Amino acid sequence: MVLEGYRGASLKKLEKSGVSVGDLVKVMTDRETVEGVLMPRYEFADEEHIVIKLKTGYNIGISIGRVKEIKTVSKGTEPSFNVPKRPKLVPSLPKVMILGTGGTIASRIDYRTGGVRPALSSEELYYLVPELSSIAEVETQALFSIYSENMTPSRWSELASRVAEAVKAGYDGVVITHGTDTLHYTASALSFALENLPVPVVVVGSQRSSDRPSSDAASNLIGAVKFAARGNASGVFVIMHGGLSDDELDVHLGVRVRKDHSSRRDAFESVNSDPVGRIGQEITLRRGLPPRRASPEGFSCSPSFSDGVSIVKLYPGFQPSLIGFLVRQGCRAIILEGTGLGHAPTSVYDQLRSAIGAGVFVGMTSQTIWGSVRMTVYNTGRDLLRLGVVPLGDMLSEAAFAKASWLLGQGLKPEKVASMMATDLRGEMAVRRKVK
Amino acid sequence: MVLEGYRGASLKKLEKSGVSVGDLVKVMTDRETVEGVLMPRYEFADEEHIVIKLKTGYNIGISIGRVKEIKTVSKGTEPSFNVPKRPKLVPSLPKVMILGTGGTIASRIDYRTGGVRPALSSEELYYLVPELSSIAEVETQALFSIYSENMTPSRWSELASRVAEAVKAGYDGVVITHGTDTLHYTASALSFALENLPVPVVVVGSQRSSDRPSSDAASNLIGAVKFAARGNASGVFVIMHGGLSDDELDVHLGVRVRKDHSSRRDAFESVNSDPVGRIGQEITLRRGLPPRRASPEGFSCSPSFSDGVSIVKLYPGFQPSLIGFLVRQGCRAIILEGTGLGHAPTSVYDQLRSAIGAGVFVGMTSQTIWGSVRMTVYNTGRDLLRLGVVPLGDMLSEAAFAKASWLLGQGLKPEKVASMMATDLRGEMAVRRKVK
Repeated sequence: MVLEGYRGASLKKLEKSGVSVGDLVKVMTDRETVEGVLMPRYEFADEEHIVIKLKTGYNIGISIGRVKEIKTVSKGTEPSFNVPKRPKLVPSLPKVMILGTGGTIASRIDYRTGGVRPALSSEELYYLVPELSSIAEVETQALFSIYSENMTPSRWSELASRVAEAVKAGYDGVVITHGTDTLHYTASALSFALENLPVPVVVVGSQRSSDRPSSDAASNLIGAVKFAARGNASGVFVIMHGGLSDDELDVHLGVRVRKDHSSRRDAFESVNSDPVGRIGQEITLRRGLPPRRASPEGFSCSPSFSDGVSIVKLYPGFQPSLIGFLVRQGCRAIILEGTGLGHAPTSVYDQLRSAIGAGVFVGMTSQTIWGSVRMTVYNTGRDLLRLGVVPLGDMLSEAAFAKASWLLGQGLKPEKVASMMATDLRGEMAVRRKVK
Repeated sequence: MVLEGYRGASLKKLEKSGVSVGDLVKVMTDRETVEGVLMPRYEFADEEHIVIKLKTGYNIGISIGRVKEIKTVSKGTEPSFNVPKRPKLVPSLPKVMILGTGGTIASRIDYRTGGVRPALSSEELYYLVPELSSIAEVETQALFSIYSENMTPSRWSELASRVAEAVKAGYDGVVITHGTDTLHYTASALSFALENLPVPVVVVGSQRSSDRPSSDAASNLIGAVKFAARGNASGVFVIMHGGLSDDELDVHLGVRVRKDHSSRRDAFESVNSDPVGRIGQEITLRRGLPPRRASPEGFSCSPSFSDGVSIVKLYPGFQPSLIGFLVRQGCRAIILEGTGLGHAPTSVYDQLRSAIGAGVFVGMTSQTIWGSVRMTVYNTGRDLLRLGVVPLGDMLSEAAFAKASWLLGQGLKPEKVASMMATDLRGEMAVRRKVK
């Protein structure tokens, strides 16, 4: 009995009924009888539903609690080995490398082939999202198979190196499929590690799992591959559903984007800046931004990241000794999420002074998310500047975190880290205007 | 020579010129000559400008670097003792208590009378914002004079007690002037400490300092007093500029509001819910929300807050030992800002298990700000639930922090804290629907 991906109550019921994935089955519920092929579950799915592919081609999820009986109509034929034929390649198409790291988007793709492998082969990909074969000659590599909350700076290093290999091998663009939880952190990290990219590198995910008719997995992936293949842009981008219509995707600069909703398809927003492009029927790019495709000369990858960076949010009654603890643990950069224009309780000043004295970089961002820090407005802000806290303008704390991790990974001295943090490298901060 | 509020280069120049606040002066700059009365600076202003009140009544700031010469036209007459007459009270008007805690809004008020005292007397208030006397019979108490980043749970306690005194004394509403940095934390804290409020308690601030023509101090204060006096609502609210027009203010539920921009006047937003009211020419309230004014029976104040709560944001490569450190420091509740639907790196699980085993409450919110945590979707979320991490729905981390601080302040046992945290008490979380 092959029941890939099923667990718990669903698995028990299916086993008891003697059915396998791929079988044509009849499911009797308290309300109706449904006939179709039993589909495998993807790795991250819940335990409470079984999925049936109807004759119409649609998949539906049925709550196991409602299922009275499951009967086999006819046995299937080992669906997991039913690998589709690789479609004919069109050699004139641009070449795109897809690197899989895991997450809902990859599991969606797996969903119809079965198995619990979030990574994907190019064969499966073509089969499942056939539109891709008319857009690009796609190659795939499965790099990780993780939930994105388990992404780490050392995995960023590995990912950056793989992207660089693909770029050097002459791919016209690279797509990274990624869980959405920390997708924006990774996009920032890659932005710093990959300098003078000649082509677009797109990080893409999916907010909706495949049981739901509103899944954005296929449309996001198609948009990402389209942009990687044909977008006249270079740099690291995030492409996700854009919110205005079902068919439009936003192209965000990798260092300027944030996941601002836990579940909506348009959860990703460019912060303190507009998206740099939009993908509908056509790709439209913002005038003057982003940089266009370039020659590969000058491209370099510096993939090292340091583990020694912390993000610390400040709040009323914040425990100052936390700063000292982080320093003792080997932390070499602290990104503060201060209040308002970049403030910290005066009770934290001594610990910040000690940390900075010990060579730890302390940078200030704002927990307001939107807007810029401006530490010259109030005298407490000026006090913090005098302590050596570095204002990071309108940089997102997540981008600042990735940037500090990268700068430390390059073995730079504290003064150099401080001056680079305050300098715009990849569009992560608006060039500072003189404060009135 | 009276030069209240001036410091640094400005003070030096003014002293050298022999002028005092209140003098009619002529200021020659590289571009023009300006005549007007030298105004005092407010406490939190920068050092680089002097402020002149023109004959038109407008105040302008002049950069000290541009000033060539300052001449006295005529001496003023001790402006700081020019205390305005208390306007005639209209005894039929509602009674409103204004409690001052500091911040830009209070310093704005101070601006024209001079001095460096962010708190204000009712006489000054009537003089400076004369509209107030036609709205309410206002009394004022200066409670603190702090930047709001220095607000603490113990100050919340003191503030809650003062509000309760005013409510018990029969005031028709209470207004708290507050720095905007942590205004929303305080509004949440008061929401929990004050139960069954019969009248509105309004926390109000100002985003723009008084040098700027766009200052929102007076309009926000007028709106807050209007709502406290006449709004048919009970509970704790935040009233700030609403963004659609210059004259409209939003009324936010105290537990649902967040400062989402570092500098805009409409920085405060209701998150995961709409504002409960709007103040234009009239006060409009959302149907069914908020609760209307009520009888004072049942009103109670439980003003104790605990210092033992931390907000911890999670990110790639988060240092798990931080959790253990907080527990050793006496932390009794940790509000996690997880990723996405409420996830944490698996590397943190052991530390979370130990903390929970030691009786520490661990609650999960999302760093996405918008949306709800839903920890049953992915198996890593379910793992966290099994560890005892409590999902906090769509509650803001700031509200969750204040709530945990309050519950611990009431001396409740860990199990009771956990069950109350997961229960909506003041509108801080949407009542949880069953997850599909």
